[in-house]
Amino acid sequence: MALYQRWRCLRLQGLQACRLHTAVVSTPPRWLAERLGLFEELWAAQVKRLASMAQKEPRTIKISLPGGQKIDAVAWNTTPYQLARQISSTLADTAVAAQVNGEPYDLERPLETDSDLRFLTFDSPEGKAVFWHSSTHVLGAAAEQFLGAVLCRGPSTEYGFYHDFFLGKERTIRGSELPVLERICQELTAAARPFRRLEASRDQLRQLFKDNPFKLHLIEEKVTGPTATVYGCGTLVDLCQGPHLRHTGQIGGLKLLSNSSSLWRSSGAPETLQRVSGISFPTTELLRVWEAWREEAELRDHRRIGKEQELFFFHELSPGSCFFLPRGTRVYNALVAFIRAEYAHRGFSEVKTPTLFSTKLWEQSGHWEHYQEDMFAVQPPGSDRPPSSQSDDSTRHITDTLALKPMNCPAHCLMFAHRPRSWRELPLRLADFGALHRAEASGGLGGLTRLRCFQQDDAHIFCTTDQVLKQALKEFGEPWDLNSGDGAFYGPKIDVHLHDALGRPHQCGTIQLDFQLPLRFDLQYKGQAGALERPVLIHRAVLGSVERLLGVLAESCGGKWPLWLSPFQVVVIPVGSEQEEYAKEAQQSLRAAGLVSDLDADSGLTLSRRIRRAQLAHYNFQFVVGQKEQSKRTVNIRTRDNRRLGEWDLPEAVQRLVELQNTRVPNAEEIF
Amino acid sequence: MALYQRWRCLRLQGLQACRLHTAVVSTPPRWLAERLGLFEELWAAQVKRLASMAQKEPRTIKISLPGGQKIDAVAWNTTPYQLARQISSTLADTAVAAQVNGEPYDLERPLETDSDLRFLTFDSPEGKAVFWHSSTHVLGAAAEQFLGAVLCRGPSTEYGFYHDFFLGKERTIRGSELPVLERICQELTAAARPFRRLEASRDQLRQLFKDNPFKLHLIEEKVTGPTATVYGCGTLVDLCQGPHLRHTGQIGGLKLLSNSSSLWRSSGAPETLQRVSGISFPTTELLRVWEAWREEAELRDHRRIGKEQELFFFHELSPGSCFFLPRGTRVYNALVAFIRAEYAHRGFSEVKTPTLFSTKLWEQSGHWEHYQEDMFAVQPPGSDRPPSSQSDDSTRHITDTLALKPMNCPAHCLMFAHRPRSWRELPLRLADFGALHRAEASGGLGGLTRLRCFQQDDAHIFCTTDQVLKQALKEFGEPWDLNSGDGAFYGPKIDVHLHDALGRPHQCGTIQLDFQLPLRFDLQYKGQAGALERPVLIHRAVLGSVERLLGVLAESCGGKWPLWLSPFQVVVIPVGSEQEEYAKEAQQSLRAAGLVSDLDADSGLTLSRRIRRAQLAHYNFQFVVGQKEQSKRTVNIRTRDNRRLGEWDLPEAVQRLVELQNTRVPNAEEIF
Repeated sequence: MALYQRWRCLRLQGLQACRLHTAVVSTPPRWLAERLGLFEELWAAQVKRLASMAQKEPRTIKISLPGGQKIDAVAWNTTPYQLARQISSTLADTAVAAQVNGEPYDLERPLETDSDLRFLTFDSPEGKAVFWHSSTHVLGAAAEQFLGAVLCRGPSTEYGFYHDFFLGKERTIRGSELPVLERICQELTAAARPFRRLEASRDQLRQLFKDNPFKLHLIEEKVTGPTATVYGCGTLVDLCQGPHLRHTGQIGGLKLLSNSSSLWRSSGAPETLQRVSGISFPTTELLRVWEAWREEAELRDHRRIGKEQELFFFHELSPGSCFFLPRGTRVYNALVAFIRAEYAHRGFSEVKTPTLFSTKLWEQSGHWEHYQEDMFAVQPPGSDRPPSSQSDDSTRHITDTLALKPMNCPAHCLMFAHRPRSWRELPLRLADFGALHRAEASGGLGGLTRLRCFQQDDAHIFCTTDQVLKQALKEFGEPWDLNSGDGAFYGPKIDVHLHDALGRPHQCGTIQLDFQLPLRFDLQYKGQAGALERPVLIHRAVLGSVERLLGVLAESCGGKWPLWLSPFQVVVIPVGSEQEEYAKEAQQSLRAAGLVSDLDADSGLTLSRRIRRAQLAHYNFQFVVGQKEQSKRTVNIRTRDNRRLGEWDLPEAVQRLVELQNTRVPNAEEIF
Repeated sequence: MALYQRWRCLRLQGLQACRLHTAVVSTPPRWLAERLGLFEELWAAQVKRLASMAQKEPRTIKISLPGGQKIDAVAWNTTPYQLARQISSTLADTAVAAQVNGEPYDLERPLETDSDLRFLTFDSPEGKAVFWHSSTHVLGAAAEQFLGAVLCRGPSTEYGFYHDFFLGKERTIRGSELPVLERICQELTAAARPFRRLEASRDQLRQLFKDNPFKLHLIEEKVTGPTATVYGCGTLVDLCQGPHLRHTGQIGGLKLLSNSSSLWRSSGAPETLQRVSGISFPTTELLRVWEAWREEAELRDHRRIGKEQELFFFHELSPGSCFFLPRGTRVYNALVAFIRAEYAHRGFSEVKTPTLFSTKLWEQSGHWEHYQEDMFAVQPPGSDRPPSSQSDDSTRHITDTLALKPMNCPAHCLMFAHRPRSWRELPLRLADFGALHRAEASGGLGGLTRLRCFQQDDAHIFCTTDQVLKQALKEFGEPWDLNSGDGAFYGPKIDVHLHDALGRPHQCGTIQLDFQLPLRFDLQYKGQAGALERPVLIHRAVLGSVERLLGVLAESCGGKWPLWLSPFQVVVIPVGSEQEEYAKEAQQSLRAAGLVSDLDADSGLTLSRRIRRAQLAHYNFQFVVGQKEQSKRTVNIRTRDNRRLGEWDLPEAVQRLVELQNTRVPNAEEIF
């Protein structure tokens, strides 16, 4: 099919009728035609070359499959896709790419030698990456056709893909253009265009992309060998390592999500690019499921819950730091109190260390060398003051440069070292809720998940090497050796990922062995035999950042906090205004017992409306008090799921809630 | 008496025999002789002038005494001392100076017109200032005589006095020289030299001090009128406003305490001076009492207690910040928990606000203008980074200058303003334990009393003007008016001073009304009538700096902490090694109940030695467990004052301690 035919059949009918404020490209630009023409030439030559290679030396090769099965194949001829079909039609339909000897591989690319072969499907992270990377080619092709875009880069991300392209200095992409762009993408996927892999020389690459300065830059910067791969897909030809899907028809559902701008920085002046982000799935059904999940996730977005429940807010005058309102502080303090209680049981000692340290400390710890860009340095205020007349020695100034601590470990090393230590004191477990500051880039900030200021349930365990072997490593379950002579050894690290109610993973807890800091701080203790020995340091956090865990919990419980964390524990609702005094008394009893209690005496609303309002606000319990309850000094209790717990003596009800709070049960409403 | 005679009788016998490493001045320097000669000339002229004035116009004047009594006196003749003797010989003996029409006045200076007269004694702060200021003249005279010092300045301080002088570029004062200097001072006080007040013209001043560059500088800088006063006392002549004691014999006891160096800064290069500090009293007995008090205070010094009890330490890598060790953190957290409990009862809501804010916030609050020198400013780390190639929009950098908050109020104003407020929400009480940073000069740092980083039990009450009048001001007990049109009005302030066990005052709590910040942040709420109104802000703290109060409490209780604050609540002591397991069990029971408990199973010490050791370490309670206690699952309890409380069931004893801790009684050992 000639270029113009292909172009015409890809054009959507009636685009002009959309009356979009954009110059729609109605005929393919000359550079696109030239590029595609050259690609077709090179492609034809490559097809011929491969065929002749396969003919010249028809060689049988052995392909090993994951189960241990071995299949014969013909070198330079048999493709992974053909083998997948031999195995099962389901596999052939769901495979998105292959791994050959551990390397990513196109399903349609002929095998060359004896190989271990594995198939990737959308279910795996690697499969998703191939799928979404292929989808961004579709988006790129649509952007070229519809907007005449000069493409820059189009990677897959953790949850989808985006493409960055250039529309000229003045032109930006508008949200209103996304639906049309999306329809072109869908036409392209419906047309099931194959992804064609071409191996091209540097000269051929330069020729193919002579009209795209970004690609030319990438060719010079990134292509190190004599050849590189280029992929064709519809009218699109792009510089790309691959692998990709067999054809665009494997993309069953595709949705464009957002538009924004981004920056291209190279040696010259930065260039503003346009970014369109999207997501795609093998079937329309999977896209629908994802959309429903996203709706739920948005409802549960901790920033949304934080605002609705008045837990916290952010302010431009302190970017990347959170302002915790009274209710958010309640949750925060409940989390810290929980960890403190655990510390008491587990032999951890809480300490408090400063926030500002001389950069000399960070030089000693090595943070200054490796982490300086992420640290806030402080200029001592006296450093630029003129000497005042007649001041005396009390005005000697600060001379060291200081920096805000990004972590507590060096301070804990100073604490370990501030007096001689004995083996009898080990393991010494120092815990610290000190505020940490890290200079995260503003683009990376988002709600509570990435902050410039946060606190951790951070603790460091100083112990003997014996105690590490005996304790931590048994739990690791993996054999290991300590290379005691290796000063650079940093020890194994365990990251604990929690999955929230929507199945999303969050890295929270960390355990890290460290042989490095004890060396750098020359930490020593007097061993049992009398000689000085070097302790091992274990970094550990269970919640991780308290702020981030608070956000994770808000989303996971969707704002329906368990009683012990809840900033909405009880609301007292008087039936009529005559019970208001008694309702206030009940509220005071609850508060005196350390429970959060509010009062809803709004006489403008009926009782049932007020109960409903309390349940929508996720108050764990509602205490309704009418005339009968007042005279008997009782309360009538309901839960936020409208379970009726009946009449209770007020002091007994308060006592029961305190118990349920102190035992930190997750389901107080069910077991009240 | 001629100068040389006076010099000789002032010289101490046998100074050379002390073999001090100093060049003792054996004859008066020439400039001293010249200065004293000139002073005597001018003095004789002044005596003559005053006598002739008194003769020329012998005028009766009326002197009003504090009780309302009025006495006749003769202008330019009668002195306050003469009137004191008329009133009572005790008053004449104990008066140190007078106040005439509110102005400080020498007792021997003739009265000039009708006056209100008040006598100052050592008991008042003003009297102490005169007493100690006079004493520093004695020290100055001794330094001139013994060391050939060029005097610079000699003020009284809150607790005594010091004198700064110059000994040449190479020479410093040594601690070993203080005893001799002190003996010369005591000789001078025993000699009861009069303080003689001379009024001198600028030319006469320049002539008197032609050999003292410091005084010449002060004459040019500080003397604004045509004349200034000079005082003679023994061989010393000094530029000084007065007033002074009548004579040095009023100083019954004088002690020199320390030597150090200080800096003289004027327009030229700074000059290193020598500083000697001392204290003095009207009688030797008072000096002895003070010495005993000081010994006790040193024993109670919180830095000493902090070190001995392992509460906290300081480190040069974070000057002005405290490292709280596990035990100190225990006390710290107990104080914060106490305040939190009070907040719950008193309707305060705890919040958490960031530490770093854009300087724009501090410009808005006015702190940047007035407080900038005391604030730590932070350079954003990205501000000097070269643009990296191919970075995308997530690496946009921080551009605002940030500063560490020195106080919480502006952050609370942002919190008040972050959404519309209604009168129903007022008074809104926001409490914050956020870490505050202030760039205190390093010379002013000392233990926990002055830190660069500290936390306050800080809270701000946003209320209506009505609520202030109704609430806070009634308690003030003083009438006042609100000048509502005056934007600069900052409102009255109450400082609460606590006196510790040694009677020393400590400023802790503060209440401050503020009409200024609500204006600067344009704070508004919807009033009851529907219109927008401006709230009033009340700044308040009860403990003040938690760190400082911890230091004050440590000194006040001398390390014998009340149970609820104590980091040494219980030590469990097994009689023999057979009871060690049971002792550990008891320790665990205590810990599980949230009590601090240690174990002393040191088999190298007898039981009574271990009990004594626990009492010296101020453990509130000792639980002794022997064979009988183990079999009956009881403990034998003693207090740190060695009161024997007998045998208790272990769970009951733990329960009793928890009660005493939770009720925060000051005397748990007495009422157990």
